[in-house]
Amino acid sequence: MKILVIGASGTVGQGIVQELERDHQIIRVGKTRGDFQVDLTQEESVKALFAQTGKVDAVISAAGGVHFGPLAEMSCEQFNRGLQDKLMGQVRLVLTGKDFVNPGGSFTLTSGILAQQPIRTGVNASTVNAALEGFVLAAATELNGLRINAVSPTVLTEALPDYGPFFSGFESAPASRVALAYRRSVDGVDNGKIYRVW
Amino acid sequence: MKILVIGASGTVGQGIVQELERDHQIIRVGKTRGDFQVDLTQEESVKALFAQTGKVDAVISAAGGVHFGPLAEMSCEQFNRGLQDKLMGQVRLVLTGKDFVNPGGSFTLTSGILAQQPIRTGVNASTVNAALEGFVLAAATELNGLRINAVSPTVLTEALPDYGPFFSGFESAPASRVALAYRRSVDGVDNGKIYRVW
Repeated sequence: MKILVIGASGTVGQGIVQELERDHQIIRVGKTRGDFQVDLTQEESVKALFAQTGKVDAVISAAGGVHFGPLAEMSCEQFNRGLQDKLMGQVRLVLTGKDFVNPGGSFTLTSGILAQQPIRTGVNASTVNAALEGFVLAAATELNGLRINAVSPTVLTEALPDYGPFFSGFESAPASRVALAYRRSVDGVDNGKIYRVW
Repeated sequence: MKILVIGASGTVGQGIVQELERDHQIIRVGKTRGDFQVDLTQEESVKALFAQTGKVDAVISAAGGVHFGPLAEMSCEQFNRGLQDKLMGQVRLVLTGKDFVNPGGSFTLTSGILAQQPIRTGVNASTVNAALEGFVLAAATELNGLRINAVSPTVLTEALPDYGPFFSGFESAPASRVALAYRRSVDGVDNGKIYRVW
C-alpha cells in the first residue's frame, strides 16, 4: 500500500514509519521535514499536498499541537488554538483528503489517553482528544467505502524525559508498541474504532 | 440558590426553569430573550453578562448550535462553526464565568447522545458533544472548589415533530425528565460527571 504519514519525523511518526516501511510504501510528511510538507491548519496546504502525492491507500496522522496550561489562566484564544491545530487539522485532513484515498482505504488519526484520563494543565488536550474520538465514531458511518480509526496512546516511553512529570504514575508505552495499533488500523478491517494503547 | 440558565427559552431550558424555579432563584438568559442576553461566541458579551448579574451560585448552559449535514459535503468552515458555537461557547462560559461563581457553586453544560451514538449528518454534533465531555472531565480537576458536570440528553420528546426522522428508533425523553439531571448536578455533590438521559 501507498501510505501517507503526517508527522513522520515525530516520536510516534518515526515508530509508525519503522513499523510499516517493511511492507508498505511510505510517504513521509511533516511541517518542515519529510518528502512533502503540509500545514494542516490551512486548507490550501492540504489540497496542495494531495495534488502532489496523488491518490493513496491510507492516510495516517500523528500530528497536531494542543495548549498545556492551568485552567485558571487559560484564555479562550489559547483554548481555541488547540481546537484549530490538533482537532480541526486532523478533521481537515479527512474532509479534504477523502477524495484522494483509494476505495477500501483508510484514515488513522491520533487522539490520546487524556481524553479519558486527565492530567493537571491538560484540559485543552482532554477536550481535543475526546472530540477526535467522537469525530471518528461518526465519520466512520459516512465515509462511503473508506474506513477511519484513531489511536489513543499513553505517554510515550521516549517522551518521559520531557513529559514524565506531567504523567506521574502513568505507564508509558514505547513508540514501537504504539505503532502496532496504526498497523492494525491500516491492514485490518476495523472502522470507527479507538485503539487505546494503555 | 441564584442560578443562571443560558438558553432558558429553548425546549431544554424551559424544562430546567420549570424544574428549578420552585425552590431556586432563576435568572433567564438567551440570545434574544430572557432577563439578560448573551452571545457565547463573544468574550465581551459573556463578560458583560456577569457584570450585570453579579455573582451566582450555579451556571447552567443549554445553549449552542452545531452543523448538521452530510460529511461528503461538509466544509471545514461549516465544521468549525459548530466548534465555535456549542463547544467554544460553553468553554468560554466556564473560562470567563468561573470568577463569578460563589465557592461551592457549579457549572452544568449540555452535550448530547450523539457523542456516543452517531446519526446520519451528525458528525459535527458527535465531535462537539464528545469534546464537551472531555472538557468537563478535565476541568473538574482544576476548578478549585467549583464543580462542573454535563447533561447528555437523547432526542427530546417535544422535538420529535422536527427531529424525529433523524433519530429514527431512538427513545426520546421529555424535557421534564432531562431537567432532573440538571437538578442533580446543581443540588448534588457530583463533579466531572456526565448524566446520560437515555
